[in-house]
Amino acid sequence: MGPGPSDVHPRITAAMARPTIGHLDPVFVGMMDQVKEMLQYAFATQNTLTIPVSAPGSAGMESCFVNLVEPGDKVVVCQNGVFGGRMKENVERIGATAIMVEDEWGKPVDPNKLEETLKSFPDAKIVAFVHAETSTGAQSDAKTLCEIAHKHDCLTIVDAVTSLGGSELLVDDWEIDAIYSGTQKCLSCTPGISPVSFNDRAVEVIKNRHTKVQSWFLDTNLVMGYWGPNAARAYHHTAPINALYALHEALVMLQEEGIKNSWQRHMDNHLALRAGIEAMGLSFVVDEPHRLPQLNSVTIPDGVDEAQVRSRLLTEFNLEIGAGLGSLAGKVWRIGLMGHSSRAENIFLCLSSLEAVLNEMGADINTGVALSAAQKQLSS
Amino acid sequence: MGPGPSDVHPRITAAMARPTIGHLDPVFVGMMDQVKEMLQYAFATQNTLTIPVSAPGSAGMESCFVNLVEPGDKVVVCQNGVFGGRMKENVERIGATAIMVEDEWGKPVDPNKLEETLKSFPDAKIVAFVHAETSTGAQSDAKTLCEIAHKHDCLTIVDAVTSLGGSELLVDDWEIDAIYSGTQKCLSCTPGISPVSFNDRAVEVIKNRHTKVQSWFLDTNLVMGYWGPNAARAYHHTAPINALYALHEALVMLQEEGIKNSWQRHMDNHLALRAGIEAMGLSFVVDEPHRLPQLNSVTIPDGVDEAQVRSRLLTEFNLEIGAGLGSLAGKVWRIGLMGHSSRAENIFLCLSSLEAVLNEMGADINTGVALSAAQKQLSS
Repeated sequence: MGPGPSDVHPRITAAMARPTIGHLDPVFVGMMDQVKEMLQYAFATQNTLTIPVSAPGSAGMESCFVNLVEPGDKVVVCQNGVFGGRMKENVERIGATAIMVEDEWGKPVDPNKLEETLKSFPDAKIVAFVHAETSTGAQSDAKTLCEIAHKHDCLTIVDAVTSLGGSELLVDDWEIDAIYSGTQKCLSCTPGISPVSFNDRAVEVIKNRHTKVQSWFLDTNLVMGYWGPNAARAYHHTAPINALYALHEALVMLQEEGIKNSWQRHMDNHLALRAGIEAMGLSFVVDEPHRLPQLNSVTIPDGVDEAQVRSRLLTEFNLEIGAGLGSLAGKVWRIGLMGHSSRAENIFLCLSSLEAVLNEMGADINTGVALSAAQKQLSS
Repeated sequence: MGPGPSDVHPRITAAMARPTIGHLDPVFVGMMDQVKEMLQYAFATQNTLTIPVSAPGSAGMESCFVNLVEPGDKVVVCQNGVFGGRMKENVERIGATAIMVEDEWGKPVDPNKLEETLKSFPDAKIVAFVHAETSTGAQSDAKTLCEIAHKHDCLTIVDAVTSLGGSELLVDDWEIDAIYSGTQKCLSCTPGISPVSFNDRAVEVIKNRHTKVQSWFLDTNLVMGYWGPNAARAYHHTAPINALYALHEALVMLQEEGIKNSWQRHMDNHLALRAGIEAMGLSFVVDEPHRLPQLNSVTIPDGVDEAQVRSRLLTEFNLEIGAGLGSLAGKVWRIGLMGHSSRAENIFLCLSSLEAVLNEMGADINTGVALSAAQKQLSS
């Protein structure tokens, strides 16, 4: 129950253990088409260029930036946590300029600040922001931010690593131009693959670049020779066959549940965890309207050695929760309720073991009430 | 029996299906140390910076280039197949200059040509070459090429994607400065991970760079915060946990067999396949002293529709062999005997099914003798 990887369903690990076949085998190529279609479903998009990058989410981020940004470009980066900072690094390593829109960690990106910044930089080409900040648990209003960006003739790059499958995400409706995610959060798949999607506007920009994409491995023009529609399935790199079996199974499971049901399940379980956390007397860092259901940042009670709590939960209760990062380090725990981890027994284990450890350590919390509160919420 | 991925041993797929734990879990961190040690064994190196890159071999290549090469540098790239061409792309996308040493596809890199080139370009910084060209089946003399490079004060980057575990490779003895490989060839692991190793000289060059590494994902300075010795195991990206379980098991199996025994097995099985191929009247593309035992490029008999042969082998005999690439496209088949694929029953299946299909298609081959020839060689 950390910030990911989430628990992986046994069906997915079983799929991963299937015999490895060739990356150009017609049977595998058929599976690739299914993966692409199911990723379109997950992203709620018709984008043709919707594929899994053969590396973790950080490479998915890099894929979006190196394909769309060229040296000398101006990119507005909204930062309200760790991953906005990583976006800045990506922009600068391309030789482009990052114009920062800063918000406090734990707050969503402020649309007004973005609008003001875009007025000051009319030559900005791209707006990049994180939909669901894994480092804080805050969700930003992707639809509004995209509208503002487009009003100012900017493309958008959106980090959806933690949102995909866990909360509403409508790539086409919100007109997101480029988006990347990870497999190890709300898809509950093994880590190592990054689904990405580019719309036609973004593809046009990539096709009309003045310079080559600086990464050969991530160059979409080349990758599409293997993954593209009606492509020759020309060898580019050896696809991570077994990891794609796992992603395939995870996406089949998402379809079986239905993506809206998955969003609802994440919300229902978040509300139950919240009921227990608040009954215990603990509180959330992020204001209610912006809270991610799948990533719960809980304030650490005064005087508690937070690392010791995490260590005891892990060794005594076999339960991992996450530490705070950056400006929230030492101030919060991050409790994930992602994908297969988002279920009632995990909520009960988390609340009861956290209560037990905090109580033994003499923290000032209410005991004996958290589980009932969570259970009542679940059955309401 | 294509050019990789090779058959994956059931122990390895079983390892891959173990439950996913956190990438910062102390148990996982302990396993990381074992993976690093076993990679040192496989590479025959004491290099501290010996780690698995969380992406396929193409990203391992890119990792070596983007960390060591800076804009404006001159890099001598020896090309005798597909992968030398990819190295050139890597160099140029960094804004550096690639000075090409070209050899015919199917031949090894000519040390004399390298020496002449280095005399003409005394300011070259790096020499890059492919140890085992997967696209042709030719092996180059890595030790000699490294000696020449060092005589001219160049660092070396070596592609060992297909050699690691399959033929002699001594990173420390040969003084290779930077090397990358893949998991899906002679380690017989699932594809998706690229082991790399940098020696102290290379690390020094990385530390003294004037510019940031252009890839955030592949920046060794950052990656080592997670993988480095005595590192804080600071979060950089989410490691592909299950893929690393698989690599761990593959390396345990390599240790159990002993790396020299693994090299010998690859050679013994190559000689058996060769005996059968030659008994059938077919021939090899690569001259004998430079043949890779794990990747056998066999000349296609006149008048044979080579794609149809491969397609029939796959559909009728469940056997994949590889097509030729680049200047060898349509001229050769590439038959892999890598890792777990390198065993007697595969040799027999390959020879007998190839004979059956070629005979039905009316090719001019000797029938009824290949298997006996292979069997005699195996028991000699």
